[in-house]
Amino acid sequence: MANRPVTIKDIAEKLSISVSTVSRALKNNPEISLQTREAVQKLAKELNYRPNPLAVALKTQKSNTIGVVVPQIVSSFYASVVKGIEQVADEHGYQVFVSSSNEKLEKEKKNVDGFLNMRMDGIILSLSRATNTYDHIHKIKDMGVPIVLFDRTSKELDVSKVVADDAAAAHAAVTHLLEGGAKRVAFLTGPEYMLFGRNRMRGYKLALSDKNIDLDETLISRCDFTVDSAKQATMDLLSRSNRPDAFFAINDELAIGAIMAAKELGFKIPEEVAVVGFSNSRRSRYMEPSISTMDQNPKEVGREAANLLFEQMEDKPDSDKVKEAVVHADLIVRASSEK
Amino acid sequence: MANRPVTIKDIAEKLSISVSTVSRALKNNPEISLQTREAVQKLAKELNYRPNPLAVALKTQKSNTIGVVVPQIVSSFYASVVKGIEQVADEHGYQVFVSSSNEKLEKEKKNVDGFLNMRMDGIILSLSRATNTYDHIHKIKDMGVPIVLFDRTSKELDVSKVVADDAAAAHAAVTHLLEGGAKRVAFLTGPEYMLFGRNRMRGYKLALSDKNIDLDETLISRCDFTVDSAKQATMDLLSRSNRPDAFFAINDELAIGAIMAAKELGFKIPEEVAVVGFSNSRRSRYMEPSISTMDQNPKEVGREAANLLFEQMEDKPDSDKVKEAVVHADLIVRASSEK
Repeated sequence: MANRPVTIKDIAEKLSISVSTVSRALKNNPEISLQTREAVQKLAKELNYRPNPLAVALKTQKSNTIGVVVPQIVSSFYASVVKGIEQVADEHGYQVFVSSSNEKLEKEKKNVDGFLNMRMDGIILSLSRATNTYDHIHKIKDMGVPIVLFDRTSKELDVSKVVADDAAAAHAAVTHLLEGGAKRVAFLTGPEYMLFGRNRMRGYKLALSDKNIDLDETLISRCDFTVDSAKQATMDLLSRSNRPDAFFAINDELAIGAIMAAKELGFKIPEEVAVVGFSNSRRSRYMEPSISTMDQNPKEVGREAANLLFEQMEDKPDSDKVKEAVVHADLIVRASSEK
Repeated sequence: MANRPVTIKDIAEKLSISVSTVSRALKNNPEISLQTREAVQKLAKELNYRPNPLAVALKTQKSNTIGVVVPQIVSSFYASVVKGIEQVADEHGYQVFVSSSNEKLEKEKKNVDGFLNMRMDGIILSLSRATNTYDHIHKIKDMGVPIVLFDRTSKELDVSKVVADDAAAAHAAVTHLLEGGAKRVAFLTGPEYMLFGRNRMRGYKLALSDKNIDLDETLISRCDFTVDSAKQATMDLLSRSNRPDAFFAINDELAIGAIMAAKELGFKIPEEVAVVGFSNSRRSRYMEPSISTMDQNPKEVGREAANLLFEQMEDKPDSDKVKEAVVHADLIVRASSEK
């Protein structure tokens, strides 16, 4: 299978002319006789010759491509972000290539190196859960390659970002539960170190205090990100004498776990236990009851990230300024909380 | 933002030495004095110099990368296939880059060109719904770049493939419904031109004839691939006097539509109406009732495709032979059909 690509040299040898003649003939240079030009072009076509694009890129330093690094490839959120990026890239005639860090720092670094090696014109990236050093991000900047971060970003990084207003989103979700009559809203969240978790916690607390409800720390339960852990946490919370009457879950997986537990214990949803999730996964719509959730508008996140990137790539005025775009989440009320 | 990458020339100018001296110093060539070597290497580090990887690739003609073209990026099936490809690629120290054709032939061609331009060492591809010409696939072969097709393939193409045995899978699904007591199994399928639809139709018919049940063409309903169209079709079928007592849906979306309709009409699932879907989407598990389905083992599809590709890339014996790997689907019985 190792038949290598046809080169100018191959054509030159076959026609017994010089490499530079072939090169100029391919460019239709009038210094070369029409006859030779035609012969070269005909053979090039027959042999399926294509100018070595690496060589072309070496000269032009432009590839009309964008590299996207996502933490996970199996995720409707990231897939929708990529879709948004593709829409904008299509409009500009750019191609999008995606690689996944699989939540590993080492792989994220490799992805970045790969994209830099391929001379992508710009890079859009969401940090993996494991990323705690940023040399690879600094390298992108130092090489003058436009970069935009989205979703999982870091305050330490002085680059343009598209972020969610997680505190505002959590505030909206919890306020909706309180205004539906809930008095004791439990919060199913993840490990403490995650930035978006901390921000949603802020929104949760603020929504309570806005309604003059005292915070009850025992209603906050830290789960890993599985349905089962949320189910177990909900079982525990609902078995207490002073049980919660609503659950705000940091994602739809945890909301599914909460609903499964509430149903198993015989509670009516939403009358006795209301639930709101986060991220509008497709299955949240088809669960029974269907799950209220926060739609993070992932396509819009992708479109914003691509727009910020093209501003840099096209050297728009102000494009050297670091910008931060906020994409807001929308509350979608469904059966799990609609009273 | 347009500060271009540092080149050997920049280093040479700054140190007032020749380009070839810098080049050799960077390679630690002993012909260059230790002092100069150290000075060059120190400055290269300071300036963040990296050998132009395009130039490196030009020489080595190897990029340690695989390009994957999927019809859709927002799809848990394709995402899981990519995950399987990544697993094998990781083992070989290769990186995986993904692009999406978005079900368009033009975009698929561009994706292929992009990957060829970037000198991917191999390409794994699933054809878009719109693909009806194959010049771009022939080009990959003609250039000697290893290629493997998966899932959506074409008989016209003489390249290695990973395919599902759709007829066997449909046969298993329908047999399961019949053995659960169903007498009249409806088939919710898609447009006639799709190969996998034709194969599943074959399995459906064979399962009936194996149980000596006459085919009733009126139980076959062609939907587009939306929940709503399946819901409507099911409404129609269940409103007949001689209604079906089971539904085999060509994918989980259509199974969801069938279940919604059956529930709305007050039928008990699975007692009065049993349902089996196809593809084991995540939401099939969390629907109520949970949906029996065929798991296509997408990660295994990806792993098989990558294995076939590496056989070619590593010039294994027989690697020039066109191979076809079949990945079987497994029946997952859940509440929608468990009697």
